[in-house]
Amino acid sequence: MKQLIKNVHILTMDEEWTEYKHGYLLIEENRISQLGPMSDSLPQADEVLDGQKGILLPGMINTHTHTGMIPFRSLGDDVPDRLRRFLFPLEQVMTPKLVRASAEYAMAEMLLSGVTAFCDMYYFEDEVAQAAEAMKVRALLGETIIDMATCDAKDSADALAYCESFIQKWQGHEMITPVIAPHAPNTNDLKTLEAIAALSRKYNVSITMHVEEMTYEMEEFTEKYQQTPIAFLHELGYLDQEFIMAHCIFMTEEDMELVKEYKDNVRIAHCIGANTKSAKGVAPVRGMLEHQLTVGLGTDGPSSGNTLDLFTQMRMFANFHKTHLAERGAFPAKEIVQIATAGGAKTLGLFNQVGSLEVGKKADLTLVETQSVTMFPIFDAYSALVYSANASNVSDVWVNGQQLVKGKQLVLRDVQVLRAALYQQMDEFVAQAKRKASEV
Amino acid sequence: MKQLIKNVHILTMDEEWTEYKHGYLLIEENRISQLGPMSDSLPQADEVLDGQKGILLPGMINTHTHTGMIPFRSLGDDVPDRLRRFLFPLEQVMTPKLVRASAEYAMAEMLLSGVTAFCDMYYFEDEVAQAAEAMKVRALLGETIIDMATCDAKDSADALAYCESFIQKWQGHEMITPVIAPHAPNTNDLKTLEAIAALSRKYNVSITMHVEEMTYEMEEFTEKYQQTPIAFLHELGYLDQEFIMAHCIFMTEEDMELVKEYKDNVRIAHCIGANTKSAKGVAPVRGMLEHQLTVGLGTDGPSSGNTLDLFTQMRMFANFHKTHLAERGAFPAKEIVQIATAGGAKTLGLFNQVGSLEVGKKADLTLVETQSVTMFPIFDAYSALVYSANASNVSDVWVNGQQLVKGKQLVLRDVQVLRAALYQQMDEFVAQAKRKASEV
Repeated sequence: MKQLIKNVHILTMDEEWTEYKHGYLLIEENRISQLGPMSDSLPQADEVLDGQKGILLPGMINTHTHTGMIPFRSLGDDVPDRLRRFLFPLEQVMTPKLVRASAEYAMAEMLLSGVTAFCDMYYFEDEVAQAAEAMKVRALLGETIIDMATCDAKDSADALAYCESFIQKWQGHEMITPVIAPHAPNTNDLKTLEAIAALSRKYNVSITMHVEEMTYEMEEFTEKYQQTPIAFLHELGYLDQEFIMAHCIFMTEEDMELVKEYKDNVRIAHCIGANTKSAKGVAPVRGMLEHQLTVGLGTDGPSSGNTLDLFTQMRMFANFHKTHLAERGAFPAKEIVQIATAGGAKTLGLFNQVGSLEVGKKADLTLVETQSVTMFPIFDAYSALVYSANASNVSDVWVNGQQLVKGKQLVLRDVQVLRAALYQQMDEFVAQAKRKASEV
Repeated sequence: MKQLIKNVHILTMDEEWTEYKHGYLLIEENRISQLGPMSDSLPQADEVLDGQKGILLPGMINTHTHTGMIPFRSLGDDVPDRLRRFLFPLEQVMTPKLVRASAEYAMAEMLLSGVTAFCDMYYFEDEVAQAAEAMKVRALLGETIIDMATCDAKDSADALAYCESFIQKWQGHEMITPVIAPHAPNTNDLKTLEAIAALSRKYNVSITMHVEEMTYEMEEFTEKYQQTPIAFLHELGYLDQEFIMAHCIFMTEEDMELVKEYKDNVRIAHCIGANTKSAKGVAPVRGMLEHQLTVGLGTDGPSSGNTLDLFTQMRMFANFHKTHLAERGAFPAKEIVQIATAGGAKTLGLFNQVGSLEVGKKADLTLVETQSVTMFPIFDAYSALVYSANASNVSDVWVNGQQLVKGKQLVLRDVQVLRAALYQQMDEFVAQAKRKASEV
């Protein structure tokens, strides 16, 4: 099967920043086989899509989210210590069916916003994996390990066992990569953290974890160990593995120096929207990049960042980092688009497959229409993506060569049907949520 | 003519925070004549719209923008000193026809995003007024006065004369309120600033002005006058007038104490998106409110804030102020929606007419659909508006009782036609813009 996308402004996000202002791209089976300017003689294809001067870019990569948490959206957004007040208690009532329905809904939302790959951590992660397989998306998926009884494990040993069988089941899948997801350095004991590192080595799988996200996490490690969480994890061997650290809001210069030595396998999922909505702060991304670290963007869960698109994150990224550095020229739009695409792919270890539009890469693509009212004029396509576009401007999306969004609609599923299926699983959750909300 | 809107979640934004979770609202001619819960017996109407559980709120108010500047969008976004490098030089090539076409396009964009009233300052403001009349929107419009030759005035005396005839022409119009728009305290000389205050008194019209937006503005006033721009304007009698100060990023405690004495007529247009994109900083809004000052939201122009909707501003407002105050609970969503509606109406001196949904008020309304993927679940409608919605979720808009947006489309005009008309006027602008861009 050959699909030709023509009459588009292509941002390849390759190392030379190649752009075709009036270009075409050919998909053959699941890969990009050709791309160039419209002045070339166009190849034959089974299907042709006229992009009507839309902007074609690599599928965006969401490096940190919790797809099981759609039910939490708009609940207690402005309440202090929401984690312990709403999240932990309500997660006790999560069921496999609820997680499955939530995950499918979240993946639909991501696809509609141009996200083609993501990294997830939650409970009943096998349900998330089945959802991802059904929704045909690319994903790194990690079962959460935390030092308390959860909805799917009576303790962390139980969670570790779940994790191991999850890895055995999904390792080698074309689109789904199992990972291990310890919740945070301060929510697992030393023994569990060591067992996780051992499991990661045994199966050669990546770890993803919330790291240096909380002020109390930083204080606890200073007090207990006189070191930062990252220095502590280094001693446990975490930096020797493929390791995706989410947040890193409080990363120190010393942390960066340390991680720089492991920069080929340790990367950062930066969640600017969630971090600032919760008033935690602005992670030192310029410092990270100056230390040659790899950074991608993450939305965090629908309970923390609320929406799962990267347009919101790109715009937040621009405004927060420019203001934080008191420098209007900091992080020009093209660098931000790069972090949302190639940067995300590198963060998830997928850059050999996706993250740029180059011949031979897997065809994960996002087309942003430029007919909507805010998308005019366009002197700079990167600027238009960062400062003018929103998730609703995404018109067409391909993952692994298959078109999953066409004319702003899901191809394989119906959002209203997914919503009804999710709502059907939410009775007990809603009852408990309303009880919790009334206590605030 | 009676129009009934039923089956909607109504946020009235009245002083008691009245909500009808399942409500209806009746428009009679140009006013709200009835509203309440669906359990009432519904009134008869000529037209009935089923809102399908959408969220009905007062039309949002954009308290500071430059509708003539659509041509500048996505040009030099990340370039330092863009004001002097791009804006001032390119404004020399603005023509009446270009401003008119741009203003209509900008008003279309605002309507589609749920903005029903705004305050504008630009050149050829009579063209903007004609555009506003044609587009049927509510507006405060001010001709810019600045101490240099511009596209429509050879000097500030010339601009003052334009201003006076503009006031004479439009004063008393039902929907359009002429105001005077001196550019900034540091871009007009003392004589001009005094003449502006006199003109404002003569016709009893409001003034709107960029105030305390620039670090060099602050430094210049400290050096020249050993006082802040606001203290300086106070001495010139500006605080005795209806005065809408845009930005106020660097407002001091002393400024706030001073303005507090004039709080009934001096208000602030807060442009968080533009202020942070340009790395200028976060205005002290909590302090302003603690001093009982009135604050509304503004997008600034399409060259500074890029999009003209208030959803982007509301979300930026939440994240920036929470982070700035290091307090997650600061500015809960409902307070932000209030600032975007009632706060904006108060800022523009329109609250006796619009800004809340109450019997007798003019029917300026925005309906936000809740079918889109991000609008589920909704535990809190205010949270959904601030953290989940974007401008594309606005489905229906009424201004002064007339429906101007229906099913996400303009009723009276066509966006593609407006775009083509604008593009037709842009030849010289685009040529000059590309020349400027190549010099960076």
